[in-house]
Amino acid sequence: MNTFPRLIEVRQKILKKNDVVARELRERFRREGTFVVSLVSSPGSGKTELLRLMLNSLAQRFRVGALVGDLATENDARRLSQSGVPVRQIVTGSVCHLEAEMVRQSLEDWGIAGLNFLFIENVGNLVCPASFDLGEQVRLILTSTAEGEDKPLKYPTIFHSADAAVITKIDLADAVGFRRDDLVKAIHSVRPGMRVFETSARTESGVSELVDFLVGLRAQALGA
Amino acid sequence: MNTFPRLIEVRQKILKKNDVVARELRERFRREGTFVVSLVSSPGSGKTELLRLMLNSLAQRFRVGALVGDLATENDARRLSQSGVPVRQIVTGSVCHLEAEMVRQSLEDWGIAGLNFLFIENVGNLVCPASFDLGEQVRLILTSTAEGEDKPLKYPTIFHSADAAVITKIDLADAVGFRRDDLVKAIHSVRPGMRVFETSARTESGVSELVDFLVGLRAQALGA
Repeated sequence: MNTFPRLIEVRQKILKKNDVVARELRERFRREGTFVVSLVSSPGSGKTELLRLMLNSLAQRFRVGALVGDLATENDARRLSQSGVPVRQIVTGSVCHLEAEMVRQSLEDWGIAGLNFLFIENVGNLVCPASFDLGEQVRLILTSTAEGEDKPLKYPTIFHSADAAVITKIDLADAVGFRRDDLVKAIHSVRPGMRVFETSARTESGVSELVDFLVGLRAQALGA
Repeated sequence: MNTFPRLIEVRQKILKKNDVVARELRERFRREGTFVVSLVSSPGSGKTELLRLMLNSLAQRFRVGALVGDLATENDARRLSQSGVPVRQIVTGSVCHLEAEMVRQSLEDWGIAGLNFLFIENVGNLVCPASFDLGEQVRLILTSTAEGEDKPLKYPTIFHSADAAVITKIDLADAVGFRRDDLVKAIHSVRPGMRVFETSARTESGVSELVDFLVGLRAQALGA
């Protein structure tokens, strides 16, 4: 298809522009002392439930907020705002990922500042979000026990773009015949040495370890 | 971002070209008596396992084959070729969906003809494949009991592009607290009256109903 080279050219322009905005955001977050964590995964891996638990936990000690991206519906923002922390939904329409400009615009409209933690939940997608830097300090990739252990091998780019992996729905491990070692091996074949957390939003197991990890990273980043 | 209108323009050109190729494919499949079924879902919804069972079942009575799309790895083709039917992998690189031209090219390289059924397994993604007609007669959208009942509301375009819905991993329904009525209601709010199948690749329940449905559609399409 001879339209492909043209698409790539336009795509590169968009990515370049995205990187510029992402750098500005990262600099701004650093100045304001806001530690930004993004979450990527397949649809239905449990990003929103895990985020709800992390917000609840962190809100006891920190000023936290969240931006959540979806093609349609504001369901996630409604679910998360029950935790009492400020949450904004970014409805992307038909766009399969968040972009730095969407984050920038959303923060501008929101008028919020002085957060200690900002979480950004991307659109559920293991492909498109990989190339878009959102100015976050840490990107978490979630994959559930129900999805199969080969996902890192099939979607290597997004696993490679992440800083830590979170296995979700660990409570289902027996029911689905989850092979933990296979998944960890697949993760490490794509991203050697990446930290891997195991969580269950239902039993809340593993959530405090993940929260402590993020709190530690924030302290490091602020030189505290 | 002022590059957006340009991207949309290029995207429309690609979609238009895709539609032309898809129409040619559809005409060719009709001439050759090949009934083409595509599968779309999130990563890890169980497309490959369900496809394996359908191939096994149909191969007893029909000439069947499959094209499977993935960003990386030929794992799916290897798994499926154990069923003894011809299977080809389309490795898309960083492209988040299959396109009609990839199908056309793959069939040309393959040199296969005279199939009664051709299955096309798309890249695991609930966004990008929605806009790309592959020349298929029937598109199945799969969603697993583990993904949450709100997926049709969050990804309405792809549900709307499908002809029938398949709930997978029904054996996990109790373990995950699956709310069947909520999911069916969400499906029907996006696509009123759409047929909904309930399957388990583990227990094989519901697979024969789905196979019979496809055999019936093929007979209708061929005027048999």
